[in-house]
Amino acid sequence: MKRKLRVGVIGLGYWGPNLVRNFYKLPEVEVTAVADLSKESLEKIAQDYPSIKILTKKPSDIFKSKEIDAVVIATPVHTHFKLTHEALAAGKHVLVEKPMTRTVSEAERLIETASKKNLILMVDHTFVYSPPVKKIKELIEKGSLGRLHYIDSTRINLGLFQSDINVIWDLAPHDFSIINYLVGRKPQSLAAYGIKHPVDTKEAVAYLTIKYPNNILAHVNVSWFSPVKLRTMLIGGNKRMVVYDHIHPSEKIKIYDHGVKISNNKADPFNPVYRAGDISIPKIESGEALAEVCRHFVESIFNKKIPLTSGVEGLGVVKLLEASDRSLESNGVEVEII
Amino acid sequence: MKRKLRVGVIGLGYWGPNLVRNFYKLPEVEVTAVADLSKESLEKIAQDYPSIKILTKKPSDIFKSKEIDAVVIATPVHTHFKLTHEALAAGKHVLVEKPMTRTVSEAERLIETASKKNLILMVDHTFVYSPPVKKIKELIEKGSLGRLHYIDSTRINLGLFQSDINVIWDLAPHDFSIINYLVGRKPQSLAAYGIKHPVDTKEAVAYLTIKYPNNILAHVNVSWFSPVKLRTMLIGGNKRMVVYDHIHPSEKIKIYDHGVKISNNKADPFNPVYRAGDISIPKIESGEALAEVCRHFVESIFNKKIPLTSGVEGLGVVKLLEASDRSLESNGVEVEII
Amino acid sequence: MKRKLRVGVIGLGYWGPNLVRNFYKLPEVEVTAVADLSKESLEKIAQDYPSIKILTKKPSDIFKSKEIDAVVIATPVHTHFKLTHEALAAGKHVLVEKPMTRTVSEAERLIETASKKNLILMVDHTFVYSPPVKKIKELIEKGSLGRLHYIDSTRINLGLFQSDINVIWDLAPHDFSIINYLVGRKPQSLAAYGIKHPVDTKEAVAYLTIKYPNNILAHVNVSWFSPVKLRTMLIGGNKRMVVYDHIHPSEKIKIYDHGVKISNNKADPFNPVYRAGDISIPKIESGEALAEVCRHFVESIFNKKIPLTSGVEGLGVVKLLEASDRSLESNGVEVEII
Amino acid sequence: MKRKLRVGVIGLGYWGPNLVRNFYKLPEVEVTAVADLSKESLEKIAQDYPSIKILTKKPSDIFKSKEIDAVVIATPVHTHFKLTHEALAAGKHVLVEKPMTRTVSEAERLIETASKKNLILMVDHTFVYSPPVKKIKELIEKGSLGRLHYIDSTRINLGLFQSDINVIWDLAPHDFSIINYLVGRKPQSLAAYGIKHPVDTKEAVAYLTIKYPNNILAHVNVSWFSPVKLRTMLIGGNKRMVVYDHIHPSEKIKIYDHGVKISNNKADPFNPVYRAGDISIPKIESGEALAEVCRHFVESIFNKKIPLTSGVEGLGVVKLLEASDRSLESNGVEVEII
Repeated sequence: MKRKLRVGVIGLGYWGPNLVRNFYKLPEVEVTAVADLSKESLEKIAQDYPSIKILTKKPSDIFKSKEIDAVVIATPVHTHFKLTHEALAAGKHVLVEKPMTRTVSEAERLIETASKKNLILMVDHTFVYSPPVKKIKELIEKGSLGRLHYIDSTRINLGLFQSDINVIWDLAPHDFSIINYLVGRKPQSLAAYGIKHPVDTKEAVAYLTIKYPNNILAHVNVSWFSPVKLRTMLIGGNKRMVVYDHIHPSEKIKIYDHGVKISNNKADPFNPVYRAGDISIPKIESGEALAEVCRHFVESIFNKKIPLTSGVEGLGVVKLLEASDRSLESNGVEVEII
Repeated sequence: MKRKLRVGVIGLGYWGPNLVRNFYKLPEVEVTAVADLSKESLEKIAQDYPSIKILTKKPSDIFKSKEIDAVVIATPVHTHFKLTHEALAAGKHVLVEKPMTRTVSEAERLIETASKKNLILMVDHTFVYSPPVKKIKELIEKGSLGRLHYIDSTRINLGLFQSDINVIWDLAPHDFSIINYLVGRKPQSLAAYGIKHPVDTKEAVAYLTIKYPNNILAHVNVSWFSPVKLRTMLIGGNKRMVVYDHIHPSEKIKIYDHGVKISNNKADPFNPVYRAGDISIPKIESGEALAEVCRHFVESIFNKKIPLTSGVEGLGVVKLLEASDRSLESNGVEVEII
Repeated sequence: MKRKLRVGVIGLGYWGPNLVRNFYKLPEVEVTAVADLSKESLEKIAQDYPSIKILTKKPSDIFKSKEIDAVVIATPVHTHFKLTHEALAAGKHVLVEKPMTRTVSEAERLIETASKKNLILMVDHTFVYSPPVKKIKELIEKGSLGRLHYIDSTRINLGLFQSDINVIWDLAPHDFSIINYLVGRKPQSLAAYGIKHPVDTKEAVAYLTIKYPNNILAHVNVSWFSPVKLRTMLIGGNKRMVVYDHIHPSEKIKIYDHGVKISNNKADPFNPVYRAGDISIPKIESGEALAEVCRHFVESIFNKKIPLTSGVEGLGVVKLLEASDRSLESNGVEVEII
Repeated sequence: MKRKLRVGVIGLGYWGPNLVRNFYKLPEVEVTAVADLSKESLEKIAQDYPSIKILTKKPSDIFKSKEIDAVVIATPVHTHFKLTHEALAAGKHVLVEKPMTRTVSEAERLIETASKKNLILMVDHTFVYSPPVKKIKELIEKGSLGRLHYIDSTRINLGLFQSDINVIWDLAPHDFSIINYLVGRKPQSLAAYGIKHPVDTKEAVAYLTIKYPNNILAHVNVSWFSPVKLRTMLIGGNKRMVVYDHIHPSEKIKIYDHGVKISNNKADPFNPVYRAGDISIPKIESGEALAEVCRHFVESIFNKKIPLTSGVEGLGVVKLLEASDRSLESNGVEVEII
């Protein structure tokens, strides 16, 4: 019988307890250790999960421990590089929260370290594991949508305004990871416009345009400053189109059998004509995406396989974030993604 | 008793008959003449409005006629300049369809001619006269929204793909005229990204970012290539926000008493906090905007007053259209609006 | 070549002009005569349709005319019997507005008269000819829904309050005709509850329960006194269910692949289990139902075939209306339909 | 300092753990004991709440204990009477799940017993404590809606089909308790129609009409057999109307400033006219109603005050349930509520 994977979780803020809860439910995992600066958070987790052995304020206790195989890092982004690097250096597999790091070079160093040490490095781009996104990927892969033309994502709501990062760093990692996954190619360029509100703070609204090979264009609107909450994507192919509404309780994905083709009309040969057909709403299983993230991390370790959202995918997202900073600084200029 | 205004309408395609119908209903107007290249269109209008005296294929018949005071031009955009110019030269007041002309210099010449001849020149930016837009303008003017920060407009649907103009020239004049009107200031720059679909045709999807003074940002998404039809604007002020949904049968305007302010929290002085309050949906009268356009044109002539959407406003829209062409050509570069 | 059908329309109130317009468009029809008590209505129609030969205040002019083959009656319901009877007596085919008559015995006499004289008698139950209702009928007939269990119809809005008839006589003929058509069997009983509002007037809200053979139950809610406008039907079969939303611009029919079956669980043999599957939204053509009504009337005359909504179907609706009056009088008692 | 209220919870099925969780959070309460037939449920609760002293399979252990002041009963309805009666007999205050009992006479005996022993008896009609329902009650009480005319409630979804009780006993206690609360008067009669589906089981769809004094009519539609999930109420007054949508994330209550009044038109004195005005959506706090239920129970005990949903209100709901059984048996006949 296989030995259980012993997991340590660093960071018990907003997301950390969800990670603990999901790893706890996996029969092949033992949540062995947790670390957080807050005594209250440690006590609360100890009460809820009395079997956790190590409760500490020092992440290094987890890195040093011989009873830990894998580390989950759910701390603020500016600590990701240091903690992940130390964990890898100590021979631990790592699942790190998104965004992976603050800079491209940091992300590259982590990938290199993990590779050298033959360790799994995975980034928690949760949405990539959500049933609706997996369904859309499946539709694209089997050709249901025809040739992909555009993806248009809207992720807006009121608040929470943050003071340390702008709205792009806060919300767009979701869009970037989903779109990179769906398109399946590396982006070529990005341009970003933002609105600072209130004026002397970070951007609270942003519009991003990303170009991919094959004339595929993605557009992302993220906002903390919208009266309505929307989590919507339009995915346009020449054979079918999809509307993905993450908030809708029962109709998350609508597939429109609508298409566009060049007319055969000789009098007007270049005029495209469109066709509107049926709409279908496939049943989407309702599983929690984070449970799938945890399962996938464990399986990747046991099977020594590269995870779906490995460090390389995490790096892809950080490249877009870094590019967005440069584009914002130069007032929306198009920035190449290398 | 005042003499009736004698109107001639040129162009009986899609929009022309709507103009005839609305002018016909005004008691102070006599629709005296119509011109169109199609014999069928002329016969149809003669049957529906037997009192029209002049039916002709030649616009010049209308320009020459002494029985015509004002001319309405509802022909394709590439004919607007020539027809409007001839009408003005012949001493007629002119209402011309949007967009006013194909180029800024054409628009400027028309304004100059009208000015010299002391004639009314008005552009049919219909939405500016629609009850929801007037209501939003009123809210902005009386300070209900506080300081205006952004306007985000989405005007997307499936088709009609056109072969002579791109989706911006087709749909965005609506957005440009509404946003210019609501902001009440001249735009400073525009950047445009587009997707050609099918590949060898004109842009079928476009994203436009327009900067206004005072850090106001507008964003416009127009598309012929969307599975869903949306006609939505978000208008964000620091005191209140508005969602304008032109398609909704009973809730066209929602006013969100949501706001953002700088926190007084000394520990975190720069962190904006938001407040979510009640929503209100004012009753909007259901009048046809085009009826108001026609009334306004007639009143402007009788009262010798500059119309709300005079040539100058028409020029403002053409400037943005011309800028969008330049930005598209250079792959989304920000173009200054002079 | 076939002679054109010469049609006379009596009543130019709200619905009459729509009938004139639709008959006018049919190439095999000539709208020869119209009658109305209002001089203005006659003048208006003469202007719009100059080819109409007979304009009269007296329906008898139409009945006497040898140039009329068929009569369309769009007058208030209390005049339906007399006018229809005179038209039939004069040898004219008749299309009469819904509801057919005020009483069952009147409807029966009309059917008898038409039958004796070998004339077409059709009732304008427009919705039966609408694309969504025809689609649902098709789904039921081909067994897609399995065994039909219930139909639940909601037809509510604010106003127009009427003083001569209650809300059931005003709105429920639509529901009754659709449900009779979809079920395809004669109803067995009806019970009605109503709310008079204001108190001393006719019922402004009503709930009706109709039993059909095979344990099929229909429920109808009609109201002039609702803040929201709804035109919705749920149609429940044991294999699939349909939601029909007449107002939705693009999703009028949603087919839910949801079902219920007796469990095979031996521990709990009687417990039904349900299954939720995909949803599909078939494309529905957008044709005007009234155009189809007019076409069908003309075809029925030319082909000497009984129309889909013949006098017998009209009688079926009047039976339910009469039953509703009796049930309301006795405070909701179940009334048998014979 | 006040002694803590020591609470014992009987029944750890679906709802029981929610009650434990909410009582646990109250600082003035100590959850001292739990009882359930299932060993697993007891072990689970012991792990989650290690401070609970008594874990037992026998409710009598709780009744006998001197360390318990109040008992919460969350067991199947057929056990409510016996357990509640024993608890009261043992001198404990009781909060019992809805519906209070299976029969009116049982409910009456419990009220009598509680009264004699001077104990608080409260029924968990949760919705009465929910923020939207409290808001509507407030609007009615302050006269915003004018005179109340009708309440129309729709509580439908797919499943869960139950084998021991019909859909009315399962879902309608919610509607009955809300409507009794909002109307503030005792109902006079009830009529019920139901659909058994599958045929040999309990009713899975039901329509209920309830008459209240002052010509107020309530209508309730409950269903396990609907493709869509709805939790909607229309509340119609002559001055304003309310739509309450329990599922909507941000617009739970819409207040329509729509009204109806008798016309002053002398030509048509009895014709009511309607007026459509603005709509407002008040912000509703998002608190969990069950937390409020638990708080209210504790306060009622400490302050010796009759709770909002005392045994008398519980009895009112059981009267309607019993009446629905009688009406269903006699095919929808109107049954008087005494």
